[in-house]
Amino acid sequence: MIRIGIFGYGNLGRGVESAIRQNKDMQLVAVFTRRNPESVTINTDGVKVDHADNVKNYINDIDVMILCGGSATDLPVQTPELAKYFNVIDSFDTHAKIPQHFSNVNATAAESGKVAIISCGWDPGMFSLNRLYASAILPNGKDYTFWGKGVSQGHSDAIRRVEGVLDGKQYTIPVEDALTAVRSGANPDLTTRQKHIRECFVVAEEGADLARIESEIKNMPNYFADYDTTVHFITKEELARDHSGIPHGGFVIRSGKTGFNNENTHIIEYSLKLDSNPEFTSSVIVAYARAAYRLNNEGAKGCKTVFDIAPAYLSMQSAEELRATML
Amino acid sequence: MIRIGIFGYGNLGRGVESAIRQNKDMQLVAVFTRRNPESVTINTDGVKVDHADNVKNYINDIDVMILCGGSATDLPVQTPELAKYFNVIDSFDTHAKIPQHFSNVNATAAESGKVAIISCGWDPGMFSLNRLYASAILPNGKDYTFWGKGVSQGHSDAIRRVEGVLDGKQYTIPVEDALTAVRSGANPDLTTRQKHIRECFVVAEEGADLARIESEIKNMPNYFADYDTTVHFITKEELARDHSGIPHGGFVIRSGKTGFNNENTHIIEYSLKLDSNPEFTSSVIVAYARAAYRLNNEGAKGCKTVFDIAPAYLSMQSAEELRATML
Repeated sequence: MIRIGIFGYGNLGRGVESAIRQNKDMQLVAVFTRRNPESVTINTDGVKVDHADNVKNYINDIDVMILCGGSATDLPVQTPELAKYFNVIDSFDTHAKIPQHFSNVNATAAESGKVAIISCGWDPGMFSLNRLYASAILPNGKDYTFWGKGVSQGHSDAIRRVEGVLDGKQYTIPVEDALTAVRSGANPDLTTRQKHIRECFVVAEEGADLARIESEIKNMPNYFADYDTTVHFITKEELARDHSGIPHGGFVIRSGKTGFNNENTHIIEYSLKLDSNPEFTSSVIVAYARAAYRLNNEGAKGCKTVFDIAPAYLSMQSAEELRATML
Repeated sequence: MIRIGIFGYGNLGRGVESAIRQNKDMQLVAVFTRRNPESVTINTDGVKVDHADNVKNYINDIDVMILCGGSATDLPVQTPELAKYFNVIDSFDTHAKIPQHFSNVNATAAESGKVAIISCGWDPGMFSLNRLYASAILPNGKDYTFWGKGVSQGHSDAIRRVEGVLDGKQYTIPVEDALTAVRSGANPDLTTRQKHIRECFVVAEEGADLARIESEIKNMPNYFADYDTTVHFITKEELARDHSGIPHGGFVIRSGKTGFNNENTHIIEYSLKLDSNPEFTSSVIVAYARAAYRLNNEGAKGCKTVFDIAPAYLSMQSAEELRATML
């Protein structure tokens, strides 16, 4: 059994907890929280909730620590720190800061002899993998990533900061015509506006100036100004009834040419349609936790990403079984 | 530069030759044929065509030998034999015989200290990878592979063996309703007939009994009897004009459930739409040839499949570049 610890118990931590149940070679040992542990109720009987400060007491009890904090302030500190004591895995998703995070985590993991896997999930993660595979196969081509239809937490937060807004949810939606153009192999140049639209569902305060709210949202720099944005005002009850899920997904498409005269076109498409963004992300992380455990058992150490890990390490099946059943 | 040899010069060999041009770190050294070398004209100036019997003269000149023969009789003999002298890669695609082929190739490659990659392409190959990744991520799920729309060489050959048939081409086509059902997450049980249809374009001899030909095709065991098959009689000119390509493609779809009560459904879909089946297969093989070269330089030896190879080995870019640009 691979003994797992969960560090941070929000949506992602709960997703990891439920994913572990589907993996018969894994066992949840403890959940760590910065809150008062007695205030945290988890879904698995007999598993301890302990304070984050006590994590070092578990050095001999946990094979892989799964970090479920946020990329802004939690993971840049926690992943390098915990890699001193555990094999670790995180879902650090600030793309521009990945090289720095890699370097920080690699320093402590190489020193401790542990394996650390960073930026695991679906983007970064499975989408990154598909960008890499497709570009290696079709060097003469171009790739496109589309996100959605799905809830963007950052954009939903931005809506909620507008004066007069009580609550809101934002969906990122790929533009169907853009998808069609990419799938045709035409390798179009697409602007930000041409790739995605943004749809907002907003609960306003009673008597608020709806026209002003709509205008403020649509013209918000970085978040909405570069997109075609629609704003729907709905009631609190409608928001709860119709928009409480956290779906997401998207598409990675590469089109490329082959042949002595580049006469043949090929389209490689990978897509995800996810009812729950955090539960799917958790499921990817848990498969890679298996890889971290196995790699460390083989003597590997230091920081790794999905690019560095042979696929067979993710599976419960043996190499022989995989060749016989999946190849 | 990675120095490449091509062993066998049919559609696949030509595809490899053209793919090498797109990979700036590779160089084609020689093409080997069992025909009279003087009768074989290749598309790359200054590259030698030599007889297959002389291949051992190139032991110091070739880093990776790409085997482009057929799975029925060529590769079972050639891959283990050439792995005694070279890093090798093949596209052995008789799924049921992969374990035996692996074992044979591994024996000679482990002994010689070379790396051998077998069963590389898209199925087996990229489709296999996607089955593995998706099943590791969503253990509580089911996966489906659909092929087409594309030309099946084996079924086209079967048509041509029917008395009164001059020429013919067969397309395998996924049933749209089946794709829709799978994408819904319903995890349907699908029969052979429900998954694919077969469409045949046939050139008959003048005066042949078309009704008999159609009936013989539709009722042919193993090839057509288990499918809904349509037969179109066309002229030789129409066949040449409309059906001379070798397109193919398909879909690997896994749907799975997550959550404490399996309440959330996720769909992972990978699809290929290929103008040229052999050129795409070649492009995959060439990327993995890079991996074979690098792995052997690191001291690896023995037989491997796409399951055993970390994605970063396929790319011309360095690990740092990949993390900065693709993760």
